[in-house]
Amino acid sequence: MMHIEELDTPALIVDLDIMDRNLARVAEYTARHGLRLRPHTKTHKIPALARRQLELGAIGVTVAKVGEAEVMLESGSPDLLVAYPVIGQRKLDRLMAVAERTQVTVSLDSEVTARELSQAARTAGTTIGVLAEIDVGLGRVGVETGPRLSNLASEISRLPNLCFQGVAFYPGHIKSAGHADTALQALSDKLDSAVSELEQQGFEVSVVSGGSTPALFRSHLVRRMNEIRPGTYIFNDRNTWLSGACELSDCAASILATVVSTAVKGQAIIDAGSKTFSSDRCSQEDAQGFGYFPDAPDAELAKMNEEHGFVNVAAVVKGWRVGDRARIIPNHICVAVNLHERIYGVRGEHVEEIWEVKARGKLQ
Amino acid sequence: MMHIEELDTPALIVDLDIMDRNLARVAEYTARHGLRLRPHTKTHKIPALARRQLELGAIGVTVAKVGEAEVMLESGSPDLLVAYPVIGQRKLDRLMAVAERTQVTVSLDSEVTARELSQAARTAGTTIGVLAEIDVGLGRVGVETGPRLSNLASEISRLPNLCFQGVAFYPGHIKSAGHADTALQALSDKLDSAVSELEQQGFEVSVVSGGSTPALFRSHLVRRMNEIRPGTYIFNDRNTWLSGACELSDCAASILATVVSTAVKGQAIIDAGSKTFSSDRCSQEDAQGFGYFPDAPDAELAKMNEEHGFVNVAAVVKGWRVGDRARIIPNHICVAVNLHERIYGVRGEHVEEIWEVKARGKLQ
Repeated sequence: MMHIEELDTPALIVDLDIMDRNLARVAEYTARHGLRLRPHTKTHKIPALARRQLELGAIGVTVAKVGEAEVMLESGSPDLLVAYPVIGQRKLDRLMAVAERTQVTVSLDSEVTARELSQAARTAGTTIGVLAEIDVGLGRVGVETGPRLSNLASEISRLPNLCFQGVAFYPGHIKSAGHADTALQALSDKLDSAVSELEQQGFEVSVVSGGSTPALFRSHLVRRMNEIRPGTYIFNDRNTWLSGACELSDCAASILATVVSTAVKGQAIIDAGSKTFSSDRCSQEDAQGFGYFPDAPDAELAKMNEEHGFVNVAAVVKGWRVGDRARIIPNHICVAVNLHERIYGVRGEHVEEIWEVKARGKLQ
Repeated sequence: MMHIEELDTPALIVDLDIMDRNLARVAEYTARHGLRLRPHTKTHKIPALARRQLELGAIGVTVAKVGEAEVMLESGSPDLLVAYPVIGQRKLDRLMAVAERTQVTVSLDSEVTARELSQAARTAGTTIGVLAEIDVGLGRVGVETGPRLSNLASEISRLPNLCFQGVAFYPGHIKSAGHADTALQALSDKLDSAVSELEQQGFEVSVVSGGSTPALFRSHLVRRMNEIRPGTYIFNDRNTWLSGACELSDCAASILATVVSTAVKGQAIIDAGSKTFSSDRCSQEDAQGFGYFPDAPDAELAKMNEEHGFVNVAAVVKGWRVGDRARIIPNHICVAVNLHERIYGVRGEHVEEIWEVKARGKLQ
């Protein structure tokens, strides 16, 4: 078995014990509260990890792109939710090929998208599940609740080869567990009235799909929501930790890097920059830097170029020497994984698993 | 031949006429001024494009990583410069395998790195060219000129199986063509005295390798510099344009995206976010946004999530509809290319070339 020291750097490593614990915790939480779990695979992009999530009780998996859906067929998921409007004939043709092999559901927010999806499904002789996407405060995609939602639900229900299943939303504006309760109460009320209104109009709303990582373990407080689609929870990251949604000890993924230069006083350069971490800043506005050194908390990843991480080591007692290795928890693990060809599952000092990031780069 | 409308989005497209012009302009400029051109391939990561650069007179190509060097062997380059210290036995072994197939040069800034490289070259029975990396003001890697440079040059010259060839530097702190002249004069003076000092000490300094994109066409003003390693010039980007180093019409690469939602008033969502562009902000501090819409200059790519670009269209007269397509010039093309599996070379409305981004993800 390969020792971790044998890995060339930079490498994205995952502590398997922590990952397993993260997976089990959310599986247990959702089971306990009767919530359907449809994990978003954009975080790991690895069919083998989707399979683990399914084995632990996930009812299906979520993807953002048709290209990801094609790759995730390999997970054997009984259902693929494309949580993104699918636009354009070529993509629709590819989606229909996926739908020949497993149940496909799409969330969308416009009548034109619904009509084109219906047309494609009709041509292919298949039926696609549809969730009406609603905006619950993020202001990204999704119709307003009320008349616009009713119109969209009507259109979806009327169109052939589509099966209206309910609503989807993404509460990405709820960024911190700390102030989540008020925001979740408002969300709960909003959903309650929106779903009740649809039901009064005769729509059957079997799925109310949402869930945000920062408020994951408060999902049961949102009354009508019966499904969550968290992604990050499998690994967690600095953002998740600083948002209060997990402990530092729940962060399973880190970048293993090597010090390549100490020529500038008070600074160490590591071989990991924006092409290794991405340049995502921390989502907590008062937090600086591009990652956290669990073994050297006083070191700061202050700046990055493509292949250079600038580590401010002025506050660190121990000297950093060329050839030393360091571990850094990234701000945002989803965009970091997407930069790597493979990730390494480690237990203690040993590399137990090597996974190819198969859905990396499947942008279309 | 495929029409551009047939491409699934998001897609990274390159206008071949503009790219050819960019390549020819720099080839002509360097030839006219007797400058060696060793283009950095981190921008395109495509051996076929490196080959074009070599056909136009480049004396070799530059890479940042051993993994990129392995891929760039395919370009047939007579010389590969790894402009990055190579640390660790496995990487050194791989580098020696590359050196069996072409001449390899490495830039480095520490004695320990030089010693390990020498040892690996000796074991492999090969000779590696070495450039001593100096810091000319960026404060990233590189020793100070003066005694530290002399010591490093001595060590490189003394060590077996290394061939001291001169100095390398990266003037990344010169960010704008506008204030470049003063900075270039200071750089010129600094290099002059550093190189003269080395020569007086008996070192033969045959290579003085530098060059930054913003000041590319002023390279001839830096007296002792005889080689440049620009990368971005093949495509250019919003940063290059706003720095004054090229015109908007010299930007060859753009992201083709589709409007997927207009549910929120005054806003269009495109299917291209931080997993398509990277989240690099503009290097010109007064410039906002994550890209430029050449066909809709009033639209602003104000914010991004992973797969969503938030376009502020409040100032745009023409409405944006779901299914419409838009072209966006990214802030920083090097990190954008690195997110794509392939890029498309277009002439007018037709896709003439499809290149796999072969060195993408070769982080080690």
